[in-house]
Amino acid sequence: MHGPSIRDTAAALAAGRTSCARLLEAAQQAAQANASLNALAWVDWDAAAQAAHRLDGEARAGRLRGPLHGIPVSVKDLFEVRGMPMRAGTRAALPDPGCAEAELVARLRAAGALVFAKTNMHEIALGATGENPWTGDVRNPHDPARQAGGSSSGAAVAVATGIGLGAVGSDTGGSVRIPAAFCGVTGFKPSFGAIPLAGGLHLSWTCDHAGPLARSVDDCALLFETMAARRTGHGTVSRAPRLAVPADWLGPRLAPSVAARFEETLGRLRALGAVVEPRAVPALALAWTCYTPIVRAEAAYVHRAALAGGGEGFSDMVLAPLQAGARIGAGEYFEAMRVREQVRAGLERALAGVDALVLPTAPVPPPLRGQVDVEVADGLRMSVREAVLGQTLPFSLTGLPALSLPMGRAEGLPASLQLVAARDADARLLALGRWVETALG
Amino acid sequence: MHGPSIRDTAAALAAGRTSCARLLEAAQQAAQANASLNALAWVDWDAAAQAAHRLDGEARAGRLRGPLHGIPVSVKDLFEVRGMPMRAGTRAALPDPGCAEAELVARLRAAGALVFAKTNMHEIALGATGENPWTGDVRNPHDPARQAGGSSSGAAVAVATGIGLGAVGSDTGGSVRIPAAFCGVTGFKPSFGAIPLAGGLHLSWTCDHAGPLARSVDDCALLFETMAARRTGHGTVSRAPRLAVPADWLGPRLAPSVAARFEETLGRLRALGAVVEPRAVPALALAWTCYTPIVRAEAAYVHRAALAGGGEGFSDMVLAPLQAGARIGAGEYFEAMRVREQVRAGLERALAGVDALVLPTAPVPPPLRGQVDVEVADGLRMSVREAVLGQTLPFSLTGLPALSLPMGRAEGLPASLQLVAARDADARLLALGRWVETALG
Repeated sequence: MHGPSIRDTAAALAAGRTSCARLLEAAQQAAQANASLNALAWVDWDAAAQAAHRLDGEARAGRLRGPLHGIPVSVKDLFEVRGMPMRAGTRAALPDPGCAEAELVARLRAAGALVFAKTNMHEIALGATGENPWTGDVRNPHDPARQAGGSSSGAAVAVATGIGLGAVGSDTGGSVRIPAAFCGVTGFKPSFGAIPLAGGLHLSWTCDHAGPLARSVDDCALLFETMAARRTGHGTVSRAPRLAVPADWLGPRLAPSVAARFEETLGRLRALGAVVEPRAVPALALAWTCYTPIVRAEAAYVHRAALAGGGEGFSDMVLAPLQAGARIGAGEYFEAMRVREQVRAGLERALAGVDALVLPTAPVPPPLRGQVDVEVADGLRMSVREAVLGQTLPFSLTGLPALSLPMGRAEGLPASLQLVAARDADARLLALGRWVETALG
Repeated sequence: MHGPSIRDTAAALAAGRTSCARLLEAAQQAAQANASLNALAWVDWDAAAQAAHRLDGEARAGRLRGPLHGIPVSVKDLFEVRGMPMRAGTRAALPDPGCAEAELVARLRAAGALVFAKTNMHEIALGATGENPWTGDVRNPHDPARQAGGSSSGAAVAVATGIGLGAVGSDTGGSVRIPAAFCGVTGFKPSFGAIPLAGGLHLSWTCDHAGPLARSVDDCALLFETMAARRTGHGTVSRAPRLAVPADWLGPRLAPSVAARFEETLGRLRALGAVVEPRAVPALALAWTCYTPIVRAEAAYVHRAALAGGGEGFSDMVLAPLQAGARIGAGEYFEAMRVREQVRAGLERALAGVDALVLPTAPVPPPLRGQVDVEVADGLRMSVREAVLGQTLPFSLTGLPALSLPMGRAEGLPASLQLVAARDADARLLALGRWVETALG
């Protein structure tokens, strides 16, 4: 991605070399130029301009609120923002989030960010394609016939097209990382619990994470630090990083174009000193079977009032899995939780002695909108759902931090690398991500 | 309770003034004299005598293992003890506990305790009366026609009759405190998680606690310190303790004899400086409704293999609730968890500014064996289950430490006071318990 970093932009703002009003204008122009991609769920440019004016006045007076003073950031339409409606991509009645503004939004504002718009999403975050019959599909900026990925679809498109410098998404099975990968931006899903979710709409409270999307690892790190209220340090990787590839599991899943791009990427990392080794991670094969009952049972409970009222306002796309979730027994749920513990333990073992697992974020380039299944490789067809979620959900299921960053193109479309670290190793993962980003140029 | 404390006995053992063999002999004589009460599930007196001989040899050589060196302690038959069978009061097949000896047993042995026997219990701990068609009922030492309470029935009878100096029980809804109260001994259910449960049979993993039963608060404290691997200090209460009585909720529940004994007890505490105030605790009324689905759903999952095999070996008494538990939906379980959070928050509020809640452990004297419901007060009939569990389960449901200690007699049978403190305030609760115990003489 091009353009100055958030850190440099914030410095320019503080020095009076640019203004929040000018950044907002650029965002508005980008939004107009890319209106057909359907990134935004809600925006009031006049109100945003007034807020930008206030922030610029404070900056001129030397009263900087924090490290994001004047930086335009959009928020996925499942977090409450004071003064903005919340629809979460559905027409169904939503449960009361219990407060007027999400805690993470309050933290961004306290740090000076200009929260200027809400972004479109897969309906109630239950899906990863960005297709939505209520709001219209969000479209991929690299080919509008293709999926933007989801569920933080508009967030990724906004960052990719310059509608703001950063975006807040949420990730339950891959919803930050998949759209980031499909749109060619960087997305970070931190460790479970690192960013508070109060004031957001849950999908699955044991898998839900908030996370930033932006144009670089460092931009993501800065947004993460603010939302998580922690410092990650300006980490550097001081020795040859050790990376493990879950090769056995991954091998048959990858489209040849993605596999080739991945091998080439690993070669560049090796050339710069990384030690890359294959590692058997049999636990990965268990993740899929336990993810679905956990998320569906929890989602059906989150939306129990709307379901009890007949499910009005849900599209068939999400109503069917919600209704299936409402029929899940407690025993089936406990069994899925037990399997999840096996996956967690297996991933812990896989991460012993290495800095990260490394794998492509998605096994295929962005599918066409409306596409239901995909021929991944010769003779292997998967549903689009399984293809796009399969390589991301194991890590939100188990709460491990995972970073998705571009690794060039496959079939002319964005391809991304995913780095996964041990629980709560967010700072070290971001440092590794900066190293990889630099290595890949 | 009479007899020297565990601390004094351990000192006498260390000084050679008594021996583990002699203490074991006393336990054996007590077991023989009280065999009809049916406290023990398993004992091998010869093997125990050999172990006592070894401990005595070590003591003579000055090699004391720890603060419980030579103290005979029994263990409820749902914890694994190396060399002893485990049946948990049922004939159904049990899930594999995953290790040959429970961690808490290993800690007791490492501190020098002589773990000499396993005690009878309510089948799989799912019930509070001590009636058991497989092992025969455990009988109340104060009137064998009456219930011993449960599910740690044999543990309480063992302590009450001198079969060992202490016992380990477990408490999911009151299973340490109820038999302690009915048998006139002291029982302590610590904060959730304070004593590890590894190597024990779960009933409900979100409500299960292990805890000691003994003849005094200090004996319980010493056993707790060992099993929890923490120090509680020799706490004293340095100011007038503040106690809150959930009077509105409690009032109609108490048998007149228990109410009178409770009022008289509060009067004695007031006379010694305690500040006792009524406090509205509406959350208590919610505990019952959420406890049952949580425990039944979790118990059905714990015993899923035996249930899938047709439930052979379960008595009808536990099979029916287990089968009901297997039919509970994930949504019903989540709803119960949500209500539990309300109860937890309500109890936290009720404990603000006071040292403890105080209430009778049981609202009635021990019912007759076979009795199904009970006229608590004029015109109010309750099931025995609701009567005996109603005043204990709110605190295991929410993980708060709770101590039950004798407050004399009602209708000629043991009556007990329950003190409940804030989460993780175990040490302060034990200090308060010592103060109350002294105050009540």
